[in-house]
Amino acid sequence: MKAAASSGSLLLSALLCASLFSSWFFSTSFAKHVVPGFPSSIVRPEQIQRSRDDWNGLYETKYYTQILDHFNFNPTSYKTFQQRYLINRTYWGGPKHNSPIFVYTGNEGDIEWFAQNTGFMFETAPHFKALLVFIEHRFYGKSIPFGGNKDVAYSNTSTLGYLTSTQALADYATLITDLKKNLSALDSPVVVFGGSYGGMLAAWFRLKYPHIAIGALASSSPILNFDDITSPYSFSNIITRDFKSESENCYKVIRESWQQIEHTAKHQRGLDILRKSFRICKNYIDGDALQGWLRTAFVYTAMTDYPTPSNFLNPLPAYPIKQMCKAIDDPTKGNDTFEKLHGAANVYYNTSGDVSCFDLNDNSDPHGLGGWSWQACTEMVMPMSGDTKESIFPASEYAYANRLAYCKAVYNVEPRPSWITTEFGGHNIETVLKRFGSNVIFFNGLRDPWSGGGVLKNISKSIIAIVAKEGAHHVDLRYSTREDPQWLQDVRKQEVHIISNWISQYYHDLAQAQ
Amino acid sequence: MKAAASSGSLLLSALLCASLFSSWFFSTSFAKHVVPGFPSSIVRPEQIQRSRDDWNGLYETKYYTQILDHFNFNPTSYKTFQQRYLINRTYWGGPKHNSPIFVYTGNEGDIEWFAQNTGFMFETAPHFKALLVFIEHRFYGKSIPFGGNKDVAYSNTSTLGYLTSTQALADYATLITDLKKNLSALDSPVVVFGGSYGGMLAAWFRLKYPHIAIGALASSSPILNFDDITSPYSFSNIITRDFKSESENCYKVIRESWQQIEHTAKHQRGLDILRKSFRICKNYIDGDALQGWLRTAFVYTAMTDYPTPSNFLNPLPAYPIKQMCKAIDDPTKGNDTFEKLHGAANVYYNTSGDVSCFDLNDNSDPHGLGGWSWQACTEMVMPMSGDTKESIFPASEYAYANRLAYCKAVYNVEPRPSWITTEFGGHNIETVLKRFGSNVIFFNGLRDPWSGGGVLKNISKSIIAIVAKEGAHHVDLRYSTREDPQWLQDVRKQEVHIISNWISQYYHDLAQAQ
Repeated sequence: MKAAASSGSLLLSALLCASLFSSWFFSTSFAKHVVPGFPSSIVRPEQIQRSRDDWNGLYETKYYTQILDHFNFNPTSYKTFQQRYLINRTYWGGPKHNSPIFVYTGNEGDIEWFAQNTGFMFETAPHFKALLVFIEHRFYGKSIPFGGNKDVAYSNTSTLGYLTSTQALADYATLITDLKKNLSALDSPVVVFGGSYGGMLAAWFRLKYPHIAIGALASSSPILNFDDITSPYSFSNIITRDFKSESENCYKVIRESWQQIEHTAKHQRGLDILRKSFRICKNYIDGDALQGWLRTAFVYTAMTDYPTPSNFLNPLPAYPIKQMCKAIDDPTKGNDTFEKLHGAANVYYNTSGDVSCFDLNDNSDPHGLGGWSWQACTEMVMPMSGDTKESIFPASEYAYANRLAYCKAVYNVEPRPSWITTEFGGHNIETVLKRFGSNVIFFNGLRDPWSGGGVLKNISKSIIAIVAKEGAHHVDLRYSTREDPQWLQDVRKQEVHIISNWISQYYHDLAQAQ
Repeated sequence: MKAAASSGSLLLSALLCASLFSSWFFSTSFAKHVVPGFPSSIVRPEQIQRSRDDWNGLYETKYYTQILDHFNFNPTSYKTFQQRYLINRTYWGGPKHNSPIFVYTGNEGDIEWFAQNTGFMFETAPHFKALLVFIEHRFYGKSIPFGGNKDVAYSNTSTLGYLTSTQALADYATLITDLKKNLSALDSPVVVFGGSYGGMLAAWFRLKYPHIAIGALASSSPILNFDDITSPYSFSNIITRDFKSESENCYKVIRESWQQIEHTAKHQRGLDILRKSFRICKNYIDGDALQGWLRTAFVYTAMTDYPTPSNFLNPLPAYPIKQMCKAIDDPTKGNDTFEKLHGAANVYYNTSGDVSCFDLNDNSDPHGLGGWSWQACTEMVMPMSGDTKESIFPASEYAYANRLAYCKAVYNVEPRPSWITTEFGGHNIETVLKRFGSNVIFFNGLRDPWSGGGVLKNISKSIIAIVAKEGAHHVDLRYSTREDPQWLQDVRKQEVHIISNWISQYYHDLAQAQ
């Protein structure tokens, strides 16, 4: 028996983390303004899957001397840092055969974590005879500029300023180009892969660096979740739909619970009642924090509503939303809303059943995701915190002013909310890319709340949307299991088929050019 | 009668400019290492063309508050500067009709100068009902960061560091996006135009910002003159070919003259002989400088070997290479090589016949091109200074080490010679763009020495190379004249036709999307 904190309430911690998120996200009106950490912050190493006990031998760890600033030429720009990348040569056919190179464009966290959660690349590498490379995103994991010292790198805006998506893409371009030279593999085609923010980077990389990557598999990449392209209600609407689709009663119970919690928290001994009902450890309780803790469970369960048991923050059963609603609809619980909700929360926080009490005050960040808060305060202004009247969460309006105030207060920085669409586009993407670009797969699972900001329709013959009605957040990139449903097997087959075609076409073009 | 200096030996000055070019370009071995200023530095306002006496009324001058650093978010990046742009609304059909916007992506100099030399845009605007916008490149003309103070902006690497092509492209993206919003013209298609470095920027802009520009006319843009893609001998080879094609004797006389000048300069009273032969003013003479002065004449005459009289640095006759060779082949000059060369130089420096003596020591830079030297020391490492044994210039090898030494000495900066190809590509461009991208016209005239680094073959159905055997440096963008040969008229017609198709297709796609 242990407290949830130790088994990893990372997401909660990412949300609660006092120094980064508290003032805005968790002000008095928490439930209205909560913004989940970026999608992939949910993903965790599945340490014991497919009979593997550890990841030793799956990849070598290397470091690349990377330039700090690709876009300027002042003295600071010439500083360098050590960028980590993981490499697996087991399956590579080598440069003589121009065998392909599969590159994962790292997201906002430790690259080992992403590598370990991208089984698709390991599983398809033998078929493609592919070299596997996983590149860590600057400022995350062990790829910390300013001498590798995170305290320095994260100390102020002068140093944090270099944490941007465009610099990260240029890092990937530079590293891949040099790596190919060093491997004498100039003619090996590169395909980039990524999920969530990493998927956004993969798609953008293909669009901005077509001379380096012949194609991109961008899984669950909400590249349209910027500016006014996607409704700020979309995110919550999908979560609402997810729960409603399981059970109308489940949706109603959750929807009505927020006021009950607020009400109870205000009453004498109300917090004690809540603590008892939800088995909260004795160190900390607060109505807003409890709401945040529950909301986190609902949001991340929707994101990871996978068809097979998974092992993320905490082990989750297959179809966890169904399990949550089962707990809520449990006739033995009568009308005890808190007990029902506790049952639902248990699905997310305590499937194993060995948690004695839940710690609402856990600020740990084992995967180093804190930098996302800076990115959200500069480029990554993704309006997705609105709730309609029908939302499973309390109604609220998205307000950029809140973000601005938070970012000014915490970082003394002003976001550039239009920058991402200026740099990467997004508006009228069908018209723009209909006759421009090629070889991108956008995968989205419609149960994933981020799918609302994804590309859901084919744009051209080779800019393809694969949409899985029952899919969740980058489920396609995960290791396969024997229990995978047919649709998931089909998605992966389709992806392999498309990537095969890219590579064949590349070889054909290469032969013609020579 | 006046000295050449006052009528504008800009190119010479750009080449000689002590603070920027002297130590490397004009060291003891001048003739071996001379590098012409960038292509467009030759182009000058044709102030009296088509009966216009001045440019008043042709455009309004506006300023846009531009961000200093688009790719970082440190405090310096938030600084802004006033970016100049010129706008002409005379022909615009307006936002109601989604009439097009033609944007010139400014090069390394005063934007008025480029606007006045891009008659093609003014002449085609009525047909397209196009709004015309000419955006000045940061650090040039009146678009000077750091308070508009050029002394400050150019004072050291910390300030100059922000003078880069990627920042310039992001400037254009930001300005165009904002301008369209302000004009309520979100659906107006944007086509970008540029010649020389401006053409490179136009092509790259279409490739990097397809969501902002539907197509690009990139005229005489040597985007392949980087890294090892184009032979460093190509530039001189084309000049050699140009002169040889007029007259084998002309080529031989020039080719053999370099040693004679060197030899004479070393002898007693040799400089006096040279001064007299070439009508050099009394203030300055030197064998290397004289060679540089002649080389400049040959290089820039080749670049601007237009089929009609033009008015650049100095007025030039039609087919000026033919005129130069006429002077050299003049049978009345007997065997006097210097007299022949003086006749050739006269074509370039003194067509009007009113120059009494030539000033080798003119450092003026009326169009503010000095910043190119910085760009050539950071990103724009274009290997094009090699001469084979057959070259019209003395044989020499391109050596990156020379560039490096120069840049370290003058700026204390180290170039990143592989950056441009990493960021924008270039290697195997046919294979890369065969199935990626669309709507780019690459115009090249084969008499232009820069055409060796241009795209000379169609890459796809809509990435088109227009190659004019008799064309010179972005001749297509110039104002038309009554004397234009048929091939030039045809080139412009073809360009108009292609751009019309882009716009029609855009309207078609737009209608479908709505």
